[in-house]
Amino acid sequence: MIKANVYVTLKPSVLDPQGKAVMNALHSIGHDSIDNIRISKFIEIKFQEDDLEAVKSKVEEICKTVLANPNTETYRYDLVKL
Amino acid sequence: MIKANVYVTLKPSVLDPQGKAVMNALHSIGHDSIDNIRISKFIEIKFQEDDLEAVKSKVEEICKTVLANPNTETYRYDLVKL
Repeated sequence: MIKANVYVTLKPSVLDPQGKAVMNALHSIGHDSIDNIRISKFIEIKFQEDDLEAVKSKVEEICKTVLANPNTETYRYDLVKL
Repeated sequence: MIKANVYVTLKPSVLDPQGKAVMNALHSIGHDSIDNIRISKFIEIKFQEDDLEAVKSKVEEICKTVLANPNTETYRYDLVKL
């Protein structure tokens, strides 16, 4: 069994309204030293197979076609053998 | 400057409908070896200060009071000095 930890993040040039809203909320309750907040998705996918190379190419395809919007988001991942 | 990487995850006992929907979609396009998918939030917070202990207690408070719902979610974080 292999677990993929996938991070889908907005590109730095894209505004993150959810992060901005949380930052404003935290500023309003006194957390003034917060400079920036970005909120991303963290996706854990468990595969019932043990071939790292095969899983890697599947995760790559899944990220490109399903999980990340190539216009606004980037992705990265690591694979862990369980 | 210190960056906190915060993971806010649904408790294992709580159903993750978003993850379930993605898993069904991936099964329907042939990714049958996928066993389970959980979708969580990954939050990067930048603090304009350098006191690790102070930032740690702030992050702990922010997670408890703002970012995570204690009924359904758990959180974990690590701090990185930039």
